[in-house]
Amino acid sequence: MPDTSFDHLWSAIGQQWPSYVAYVTSFWTIGGLWIVHHGIFRRMRNADYTVLLMNLVLLMVVAFLPFPTKLMADALYSTGEHAAVLFYGATLFVISMTVTAIGRYAAAHPELVPEGAARDEVRDIAAQTTPSLGFYGVVIALAFLAPKVAAFGYLAISIIAVLPRPTRFAPHRGGG
Amino acid sequence: MPDTSFDHLWSAIGQQWPSYVAYVTSFWTIGGLWIVHHGIFRRMRNADYTVLLMNLVLLMVVAFLPFPTKLMADALYSTGEHAAVLFYGATLFVISMTVTAIGRYAAAHPELVPEGAARDEVRDIAAQTTPSLGFYGVVIALAFLAPKVAAFGYLAISIIAVLPRPTRFAPHRGGG
Amino acid sequence: MPDTSFDHLWSAIGQQWPSYVAYVTSFWTIGGLWIVHHGIFRRMRNADYTVLLMNLVLLMVVAFLPFPTKLMADALYSTGEHAAVLFYGATLFVISMTVTAIGRYAAAHPELVPEGAARDEVRDIAAQTTPSLGFYGVVIALAFLAPKVAAFGYLAISIIAVLPRPTRFAPHRGGG
Amino acid sequence: MPDTSFDHLWSAIGQQWPSYVAYVTSFWTIGGLWIVHHGIFRRMRNADYTVLLMNLVLLMVVAFLPFPTKLMADALYSTGEHAAVLFYGATLFVISMTVTAIGRYAAAHPELVPEGAARDEVRDIAAQTTPSLGFYGVVIALAFLAPKVAAFGYLAISIIAVLPRPTRFAPHRGGG
Repeated sequence: MPDTSFDHLWSAIGQQWPSYVAYVTSFWTIGGLWIVHHGIFRRMRNADYTVLLMNLVLLMVVAFLPFPTKLMADALYSTGEHAAVLFYGATLFVISMTVTAIGRYAAAHPELVPEGAARDEVRDIAAQTTPSLGFYGVVIALAFLAPKVAAFGYLAISIIAVLPRPTRFAPHRGGG
Repeated sequence: MPDTSFDHLWSAIGQQWPSYVAYVTSFWTIGGLWIVHHGIFRRMRNADYTVLLMNLVLLMVVAFLPFPTKLMADALYSTGEHAAVLFYGATLFVISMTVTAIGRYAAAHPELVPEGAARDEVRDIAAQTTPSLGFYGVVIALAFLAPKVAAFGYLAISIIAVLPRPTRFAPHRGGG
Repeated sequence: MPDTSFDHLWSAIGQQWPSYVAYVTSFWTIGGLWIVHHGIFRRMRNADYTVLLMNLVLLMVVAFLPFPTKLMADALYSTGEHAAVLFYGATLFVISMTVTAIGRYAAAHPELVPEGAARDEVRDIAAQTTPSLGFYGVVIALAFLAPKVAAFGYLAISIIAVLPRPTRFAPHRGGG
Repeated sequence: MPDTSFDHLWSAIGQQWPSYVAYVTSFWTIGGLWIVHHGIFRRMRNADYTVLLMNLVLLMVVAFLPFPTKLMADALYSTGEHAAVLFYGATLFVISMTVTAIGRYAAAHPELVPEGAARDEVRDIAAQTTPSLGFYGVVIALAFLAPKVAAFGYLAISIIAVLPRPTRFAPHRGGG
């Protein structure tokens, strides 16, 4: 029974790989950073206005992410992919940087994380997201030369970022 | 007063049955699995990184579901329905399988579900979702022969899956 | 400075009254029923599988509501408004009926609401939503004769439904 | 490798500034008011039916905001911008006014905020949002003369509104 229309839809689904790559990358990047974010915030006992504003900025850029995601997916089918892949990568970079900044800020302020051991863990968690920032720099540069490769580079960064790291997730003894 | 435009819209509403079937199936499948998921997680006392990642995968595929739902609904009106019904069924299968995998993993790890009785219940709950996996196999095969019948098959699976089963829902004595 | 394009957009905003009426009606109906729903559930100490399934049905129809809302709004601009206004009213009726059914079921099952006083309050709350069901019957019948009037009838029902009623909201002494 | 299609998409991204301005303004206005709203509600010990209804109105207008946001963004590209910028400003004004009204109402009702010190803080918080109402009046008037300037005026109000103010955020001693 597989007929022409069958083949047609099937190959149409297959040709949509840029949408799948873009969707999975965005989802997985946010998922990984959500684990990091959660790891930071459950060690905080208080928040100050700076943390609140950084959190609002983070939420705003995350809520904006579907726009460059769709832009890149559309561009990978057709033209203008250099700009779209750059723009998408820059958005991911800003999101990662904001999460890292919140972690570093929290680790540096004992009034937010009073316990010394928890503060060390927050510092560790923030340190674990720093390599991603460097990787984004490399992949964004690559977007000028090979935008399709760069799109898979963002996906690779999102997968590497969730490789198990004990500290980030381990419930620290002081609470949970 | 019922005039031609009335009849027109009325029959237009009626002709949208593929959208209704697809929407109800997706909603009811997720609703049933949410009960299962909730039944598993409230018996867990701790989570580990593997559970967290399986949960992220689940969330990603659930968030993706509206896409194959719409694809199947559109295809049932017109052409290419074989591929669309297959693709939709495969997505439902992956979702069910992920929930089952989380349940089996939790039942096998005493550090996640320390209480023996609760662990037995989690094993029961996970066992109750296993038949659905077989049903999906049958209905997906049917999609090659009779895609419209298969679409109703997915609906039937979603309804069978929420037929009352005491264990899954019963608040176990150890907590709630 | 008000020029033609200004007048144009201004009158375009004005001509969108069906969208505003439909949006406000849907929002306000759900808002009012959410208060009722919350009033019922915070008096419940346990839930059973029937309540869970009724709740899933409620969630499904509420999630579906934007579709008939848009259908009615579009039809009020053009043609086919009889069918669209009927269909919209039927959806609101099913939502109201489901909330009422949950309340009646809870009031009739002491294992769900063990306290007698709380059970009386749940019965009161469910009784307060019953008139809406009759109003919907009248307005849906009116949709055959005067669909535009019926559209405002649904809005009136949604506003009447949130007129202050002490029981529904009052935190009952047994908890909160 | 930067070619014409690259320049094209890049300048297309740049030309979308009205969308970015509108999106950031809406997000930041809601973010700032959410902080105010949260500051009011965590000092309240009870809610009454009036607060509940004001909250529903607030939620309705906030849920409606994406519509005038898109309307203004589209109009800034083309024509009819006077009406769209006015309409958008009026929506922001209603949202700010509702939050302020909730704060004033709570500060005036000891049964909602029993503690005197917390009541003074709620009064302070509500007083801090009052200048925004005046600013909106000025910028909405400006929309008749220079709609593009007014669009940036709304953005300025949203930024000024989140400038650190100790009272609003400080966890008051009585609880949290």
